[in-house]
Amino acid sequence: MNIRTKPLSILGSTGSIGTQTLDVVRKFPEHYKIVGLTCNSNIELLKKQIEEFKPELVAVFDEEKADQLKVDIPVYKGMEGLLKVASFGEVHTVINSLVGSIGVLPTVKAIENLKNVALANKETLVTAGEIVMKKLKFHKTNLLPIDSEHSAILQCLQGSKLEDVNKITITCSGGAFKNKTKEELQSLTAADALKHPTWNIGKKITIDCATLMNKGFEVIEAHWIYNLPYSKIDVVMHPQSIIHSLVEFHDHSVIAQLGIPDMRIPIQYALTYPNRLKNESLPKLNLADKKELTFKEPDLERFPCLAMAYDAGIKGGSSPAVMNAANEIAVKYFLQDKIKFTDIPRLIIEQMEKNPLIKNPDLDQILDIDKKVKEDTEKTILNQ
Amino acid sequence: MNIRTKPLSILGSTGSIGTQTLDVVRKFPEHYKIVGLTCNSNIELLKKQIEEFKPELVAVFDEEKADQLKVDIPVYKGMEGLLKVASFGEVHTVINSLVGSIGVLPTVKAIENLKNVALANKETLVTAGEIVMKKLKFHKTNLLPIDSEHSAILQCLQGSKLEDVNKITITCSGGAFKNKTKEELQSLTAADALKHPTWNIGKKITIDCATLMNKGFEVIEAHWIYNLPYSKIDVVMHPQSIIHSLVEFHDHSVIAQLGIPDMRIPIQYALTYPNRLKNESLPKLNLADKKELTFKEPDLERFPCLAMAYDAGIKGGSSPAVMNAANEIAVKYFLQDKIKFTDIPRLIIEQMEKNPLIKNPDLDQILDIDKKVKEDTEKTILNQ
Repeated sequence: MNIRTKPLSILGSTGSIGTQTLDVVRKFPEHYKIVGLTCNSNIELLKKQIEEFKPELVAVFDEEKADQLKVDIPVYKGMEGLLKVASFGEVHTVINSLVGSIGVLPTVKAIENLKNVALANKETLVTAGEIVMKKLKFHKTNLLPIDSEHSAILQCLQGSKLEDVNKITITCSGGAFKNKTKEELQSLTAADALKHPTWNIGKKITIDCATLMNKGFEVIEAHWIYNLPYSKIDVVMHPQSIIHSLVEFHDHSVIAQLGIPDMRIPIQYALTYPNRLKNESLPKLNLADKKELTFKEPDLERFPCLAMAYDAGIKGGSSPAVMNAANEIAVKYFLQDKIKFTDIPRLIIEQMEKNPLIKNPDLDQILDIDKKVKEDTEKTILNQ
Repeated sequence: MNIRTKPLSILGSTGSIGTQTLDVVRKFPEHYKIVGLTCNSNIELLKKQIEEFKPELVAVFDEEKADQLKVDIPVYKGMEGLLKVASFGEVHTVINSLVGSIGVLPTVKAIENLKNVALANKETLVTAGEIVMKKLKFHKTNLLPIDSEHSAILQCLQGSKLEDVNKITITCSGGAFKNKTKEELQSLTAADALKHPTWNIGKKITIDCATLMNKGFEVIEAHWIYNLPYSKIDVVMHPQSIIHSLVEFHDHSVIAQLGIPDMRIPIQYALTYPNRLKNESLPKLNLADKKELTFKEPDLERFPCLAMAYDAGIKGGSSPAVMNAANEIAVKYFLQDKIKFTDIPRLIIEQMEKNPLIKNPDLDQILDIDKKVKEDTEKTILNQ
């Protein structure tokens, strides 16, 4: 192994972010080496990845599928398997591209084992932001955001002082239903939403984009990553997804990061940070081709999830975890066409009103709330 | 004087950039102290500035006007006076907001006297870029650009390595005549041009904006300031002047600086660099208010000056000095309605074809060429 080679593990390597991360790794065999991979259940793709990238171990979350995978390296299973890969060996960076609150414990485990974490899993900071940030500080490891918006902010802040920041503005494509009326939203299905206009991303996040809950998650994540009060975090609608976010400084000068919407750009930045590597396979932005970039205020009436997320973030404590758990189940059933699009915010509000605020929850309490709210939301849906 | 107070001198304090610089200085009496001021001929305004900012000396370029100024501090005159102020005392930064090639020698003099130079004078780098950059290196002083485009690039490069830059893109408002046809350009006057749409700037530069020569100057300046080949410097039309310029890195991530078009923002950055100061009086950008930002390729057929500047820059040597001198006289007579708008590029081409290239001119040769080309261009205009 080259002395400059960074050993990496990827949690969720068969998903959208996982495969795109391997795309980047493939370009730079002299810079990166894959040590561990995990998947939920797609063992066919995992097997191909094992053949190509030759990791030292893998984990499959689905235990039955794990038993079916026949390879000549150790195969771990379930949450234990994820934690094994998250904590294994001399890995420099763990890429956490798990979907859902299942991603929280592996992040914590990776940090406790002194790994840097390149984070695509939204739920880590949404549900357990305070705990995770404390652990990062204590163990002196780094969290590098993979989300295009937080990667943009990180890039905009290079060479600047956080104390000079007046506010940050997170841009929002608006998702699949941005031009739908309140009435039309009633009858739209998961299939309609999955025609996502700009980014190559997974199913769950595509629905979260359509509700604007994803943007709400990003506001909460930005609060934790950049230690900014919610009053200094704005959202602006920008359907072309060319400006990925902006930072306004005290002199009202604004720095923005732009690019063609391609997750490989922020993924690569998380791997190369604070440096950059030449990669001709990434798409180039030509503004004259784009012709126009447009902006407007978000419509919180049609898309109440964004306002709910600000509200949950400001309340703090267990509030974002409740919101996230209810959302996760609501989206799961919307993807199965069991509930309506407009049921998603309704189910979340119901849980947020039902569950009393716990002010400084520890990790166990957060995981308990997550479980309880998910079960209760599921019960509500199945009984309705 | 506070230990953190930076002593400043302003060359051209009664002009557009000069008065806006004093606007910024007025906000931060604890940070800046005015040591010297100069003007061309507006002694009424200079007198008011002397009363308010209490400099130690001033200079008036117009010698008759200098004799009329009665104040109780030393008054110098002519080029000698400018050089006196540029080199005087323990000044930290000399703001050079002179217009025209008259600004070259004061920049050189300031550098030789170990001052940092905040540069608004375009002709310094256009005519003598190589010499000035060598002098900066030798004397270990800094050049801070005041131009909004170069300030934008400087801000975008903070925390990054120049070797990671793929290209820079300078944005261009298009000037007053951006929507005019080739035929209409024939009959437009200086008065038409001086209705400049976005920036509060001087008369000469407003005409240079309308011809796109100003953008050509900026391309040449960027070549010298950021040590980039011309092939890595692009121009894109952006009539709203909100994105002030962009830097594309090797991973095709793009960093841009944005803001309301107000020269006080880049002026303040040049003074506070590499820090920032809170200034609530500067206008704030709200993208949702702006609604849209548009872009297109520059039209080099209607506006040949931009292509001419690339050409002169790539040829190098005395070429940009010849172009600049011819332009300066052409603009002077256009402002007096003595020549047509479309005569400006014609007169420049004539001089560029007439004057053989001098490959490595020294400063005296550049100033000689400047004088000779100006005289010859003037003769051509008056004889036609």
